[in-house]
Amino acid sequence: MTDVTDVASLVNAVMATSQAARAEAAHRQGLLAKPPGSLGRLEALSPQLAAVAGCCPPRVSARPALLLAAADHGVHAQQVSAWPQALSTAIASGCVRGDSVAAVLAARSAVRLVVLDVGLMTPPPTGPGLCSRRVRAGTRNLLVEDAMTQGEAAQALLAGADAAGDLLDDGADLLLLGEVGIANTTAAACLTGHLTGTSPGEVTGPGAGADVAALHRKTAVVAAALARVGPQPDPLRVLAALGGLEHAALVGAMLRAAAAGVPVLLDGVSTTAAALVAVRMCPALPGYLIASHRSSEPAAGVALAHLDLAPLLDLDLRLGEGSGALLALPLVQAAAAVLRDTGLIGEL
Amino acid sequence: MTDVTDVASLVNAVMATSQAARAEAAHRQGLLAKPPGSLGRLEALSPQLAAVAGCCPPRVSARPALLLAAADHGVHAQQVSAWPQALSTAIASGCVRGDSVAAVLAARSAVRLVVLDVGLMTPPPTGPGLCSRRVRAGTRNLLVEDAMTQGEAAQALLAGADAAGDLLDDGADLLLLGEVGIANTTAAACLTGHLTGTSPGEVTGPGAGADVAALHRKTAVVAAALARVGPQPDPLRVLAALGGLEHAALVGAMLRAAAAGVPVLLDGVSTTAAALVAVRMCPALPGYLIASHRSSEPAAGVALAHLDLAPLLDLDLRLGEGSGALLALPLVQAAAAVLRDTGLIGEL
Repeated sequence: MTDVTDVASLVNAVMATSQAARAEAAHRQGLLAKPPGSLGRLEALSPQLAAVAGCCPPRVSARPALLLAAADHGVHAQQVSAWPQALSTAIASGCVRGDSVAAVLAARSAVRLVVLDVGLMTPPPTGPGLCSRRVRAGTRNLLVEDAMTQGEAAQALLAGADAAGDLLDDGADLLLLGEVGIANTTAAACLTGHLTGTSPGEVTGPGAGADVAALHRKTAVVAAALARVGPQPDPLRVLAALGGLEHAALVGAMLRAAAAGVPVLLDGVSTTAAALVAVRMCPALPGYLIASHRSSEPAAGVALAHLDLAPLLDLDLRLGEGSGALLALPLVQAAAAVLRDTGLIGEL
Repeated sequence: MTDVTDVASLVNAVMATSQAARAEAAHRQGLLAKPPGSLGRLEALSPQLAAVAGCCPPRVSARPALLLAAADHGVHAQQVSAWPQALSTAIASGCVRGDSVAAVLAARSAVRLVVLDVGLMTPPPTGPGLCSRRVRAGTRNLLVEDAMTQGEAAQALLAGADAAGDLLDDGADLLLLGEVGIANTTAAACLTGHLTGTSPGEVTGPGAGADVAALHRKTAVVAAALARVGPQPDPLRVLAALGGLEHAALVGAMLRAAAAGVPVLLDGVSTTAAALVAVRMCPALPGYLIASHRSSEPAAGVALAHLDLAPLLDLDLRLGEGSGALLALPLVQAAAAVLRDTGLIGEL
């Protein structure tokens, strides 16, 4: 169980964010040459960034990076998705190649994009943007058995931490998270339902386009899987039983970023599900998390409410691939720039 | 009445947007390598940009420009604002100098910013970002008399059209609009109330920070002004009676951009009030307008609903200065980039 021990070390490396820097940023915000509160919800963002950075004003992210964790799902066999499983690899390949939606958006915002293959059925062609840390070719079918062993989940988690660590070592100052994985909204619904105590009907949605029949099947699968696993206080066991390899990798990535004092920009329902797992492991983590958008997938709203995170965007996005995080990134940078560069009221 | 004739020519120069290009863009959107509809409300944006440009895919704005119309208001004498009138010039000066919130955000997004002084009480110091087309030093008090003559309103409108025209001639491919003017939310509430038939209580808000007593005064002023003017079908007369010089300039700017086939990104409550005037003059205009955000000022929501525009952001912003338009700009550019650059589904 060396991997499980390593997970514990990673969790313990996350320190609480700086309340002193947060207070200093809130004070500075009050001195800016604008009516107090006039930037609305953006005004909560720069104090959070200061708290994470431990200084005021915090940096304006100049080297953001997007880690896209990619994997396949045994539960795809239950016909919970409108799409063939092979699409996971096709999308991941588009991200590596540079013509997926995520790649187009990342290029616009000068975001470095890395695809982490932790368990696609078929590996995508190699490329400079691909990091291969395959734990297994897809998870097991979570309806009938645990999707991963605890060891596999820990291995995927540490792969995510390592991939994030490589980006941070290379200068990334803001970590965007996203995923690729056909059928992973089923796993995300299971994780969200289990970790928030919400009913299957409230956390299950159409994902990338399930029709009514598929949505019924999907809800029944989530209900049966939750019943199979039952109460379980250990978040790593919940993750192994119900999650995906990419969810595990996302947990590791956010813990590693937090341990390095770097803020994390979440995307949609899979990243918020992973955040629920990570926060259960590490109560200091929420201070590092920023919610980019409210996905139209219902589990995302449930998770955001549970995490007490207010999303920046609400555009009915449900693409995944980190697209919501990429779209919200300029708002995060803008909040920091306003705090740093706007003149003070006394200077008017 | 030459100016009024010139306004009519400007209105007549606006053509309907291209439904063929819109349909082509919607078709192309359906071929992109992503689940249909998965980019949510962003998916309405690129067909609109195609319709405005008359081609598909439409350009991704590379030279956006922000026109900030600035003026003062006679109604300030009614104590409707928490701020001294001199702050208008101070804020406009910060925008010219480069350390206002708008200037900071514009610099981040490579947006050219021009302040158009159409009637501040005190002109700001000159600078390369200032365009001076002063019609008069502030409007008259709209509570007791018409804020402008029709000729003055037309003159300010044409000043806005000219300033926008200069930006377009210089290569601007997307026009962001904003304003500076202490007490201008009172005028915006009057315009919105009159042009949408909404009650004073529903269109009047705290603006840049009116306290409860000031809000009561402000609502009473709006009610009395609407009663003073009464029914009036001519939008130029409504504008002259109840608006500000900056509202008039914004009307002209949006008409000129539309006439040139360039999309217009609105900001908060003053720009939506100006849009109500402009749309009443020119029924073809709405196809050119994009709503950046829903200001927390109530008249903004009323106007957006009346204009049938869905705002991109909803962050409780109420700063003005074009700040919401600047924050939403990356979303507009992203929507166009996704349509142009994402691979097609058949290529997967």
